[in-house]
Amino acid sequence: MREKRGRTAAGQPDASQPGTGTPVSQSKVKVRYAETDQMGVAYYANYLVWFEVGRSQFCVDCGFSYRDMERETGLYMIVAEAYCRYMTPARYEDDLTITTCICELTRRTLRFAYEITRDQDGVRIARGETLHVLMTHEGRPASLPQKYRELLSDRRRDGA
Amino acid sequence: MREKRGRTAAGQPDASQPGTGTPVSQSKVKVRYAETDQMGVAYYANYLVWFEVGRSQFCVDCGFSYRDMERETGLYMIVAEAYCRYMTPARYEDDLTITTCICELTRRTLRFAYEITRDQDGVRIARGETLHVLMTHEGRPASLPQKYRELLSDRRRDGA
Amino acid sequence: MREKRGRTAAGQPDASQPGTGTPVSQSKVKVRYAETDQMGVAYYANYLVWFEVGRSQFCVDCGFSYRDMERETGLYMIVAEAYCRYMTPARYEDDLTITTCICELTRRTLRFAYEITRDQDGVRIARGETLHVLMTHEGRPASLPQKYRELLSDRRRDGA
Amino acid sequence: MREKRGRTAAGQPDASQPGTGTPVSQSKVKVRYAETDQMGVAYYANYLVWFEVGRSQFCVDCGFSYRDMERETGLYMIVAEAYCRYMTPARYEDDLTITTCICELTRRTLRFAYEITRDQDGVRIARGETLHVLMTHEGRPASLPQKYRELLSDRRRDGA
Repeated sequence: MREKRGRTAAGQPDASQPGTGTPVSQSKVKVRYAETDQMGVAYYANYLVWFEVGRSQFCVDCGFSYRDMERETGLYMIVAEAYCRYMTPARYEDDLTITTCICELTRRTLRFAYEITRDQDGVRIARGETLHVLMTHEGRPASLPQKYRELLSDRRRDGA
Repeated sequence: MREKRGRTAAGQPDASQPGTGTPVSQSKVKVRYAETDQMGVAYYANYLVWFEVGRSQFCVDCGFSYRDMERETGLYMIVAEAYCRYMTPARYEDDLTITTCICELTRRTLRFAYEITRDQDGVRIARGETLHVLMTHEGRPASLPQKYRELLSDRRRDGA
Repeated sequence: MREKRGRTAAGQPDASQPGTGTPVSQSKVKVRYAETDQMGVAYYANYLVWFEVGRSQFCVDCGFSYRDMERETGLYMIVAEAYCRYMTPARYEDDLTITTCICELTRRTLRFAYEITRDQDGVRIARGETLHVLMTHEGRPASLPQKYRELLSDRRRDGA
Repeated sequence: MREKRGRTAAGQPDASQPGTGTPVSQSKVKVRYAETDQMGVAYYANYLVWFEVGRSQFCVDCGFSYRDMERETGLYMIVAEAYCRYMTPARYEDDLTITTCICELTRRTLRFAYEITRDQDGVRIARGETLHVLMTHEGRPASLPQKYRELLSDRRRDGA
């Protein structure tokens, strides 16, 4: 996990402007045959799956597994919003890097920003954001437990 | 749900040999763009998803929802085996009929057989089977509760 | 396909304000077990698949199949942007209705808006939009062919 | 790619009996949240996707990309049969190793065998096989081109 130094107006990670100090996590996926469609490119819903891969790795890089958080706290991070801008189609066997950061953190919500680039040529494939709300099993709003707030906050402070 | 009168040696449903009297359920799916791959046909793993659509409808036709069974009994029907034979590729927007029956029922296991045909021309798309084992949440083997056994058994007797 | 009479500021279909006259298409899906995740609700990327189901049906209701358009013209409607706002989690076996309309149509782009409601209780599950750009097989921008423009335009005029 | 020294009667890879000399390829996947279902385990159709990940890597280890083979030859390896035996449920964030080998190679068909194990504890998750038939774009049977036969054959000879 490297430190992120800059961010665009839209809150997306911008590797070209390091400086502001939010942590950034990177994960890798290789496009699967299953993920292509008859257009010969990766089907658009799969980008949200790759965002999730980035999110999971972000948690791991912050020192906890999302799986353990669910088990320990009984809380879920429900997705409230998702947005993706598709720039260049990803194709079968493309090696992609998902760069993930938190661009907003409140007591009850987290907003992640993502950028997907292709390793072969550095081309930007997509950018996006997801907004998450903490919920109990019964669907009631909840606050992010102290322990996980600190893990994320330390990370954030580290970057300052 | 119509009565099934015959079955092939392999246990797959065989519409051409009616007679033995096991109940048969039919469900419909239309091939989604998401389900195609760059070969221009439905990706092979999706056939197992369609089998599940058939299985769910089979339960509904037997008078219960698999969802309610999970909730009421705390039991899961774990998949132990799956087999599919692909005959003719399904394509985007093909209307498919999944014909489902139970071809084996023991205290702790169920075996479903499936046949998928294309509505447009009646062509056989695929055949397959899945074997299921009853399990508790903790992963211990369990018996199919009386109520659900009866629902399935009545169905089976109906067909005699 | 019924006529849509109103639209919200954000361009999403709003069944409560009939009047402006854009056509609206409705399609049905039942949530599959495959579409749930360990949170016990439908996984968030599947909503984009359901949007596509709505889009396909919209074309059918306009008198053409997206499959035929691809074959006849050699053109693809590439997704450029996707947005989804998740309101109430959809669950296994929920019957959902996807209401789809075109909220923007230019020479080279189409924007669809979607609303997903649950049939059992009418609850709003999600809203969203997708922006599409016409492309040749080789990835060059293209214009929507006259024939398909008319099919969509007539539809739009019908609603006036 | 290491050499495989033994094989079970059923043709599945068996790491405990090295000796017969067919090449074996290994690939890694981490179970995604998207791949879980409401039972809290990986949904059964995803195992076929992981088999495909193993197959792709097998080709790469043999010196070619399946993507390039499709482009160069205009041929597809259509799936004719798939079988999976599920042993232990895979869970979110499990690290899995897919061990892949060819267990049968004729002029027009290939049969792959797979074994999936969990890295954390070495537990066997699943075993399976897929049978593939060479086809032209138009769906006519074809023979595996010389070049690719040799790439696979050399591999096979290497292991002798």
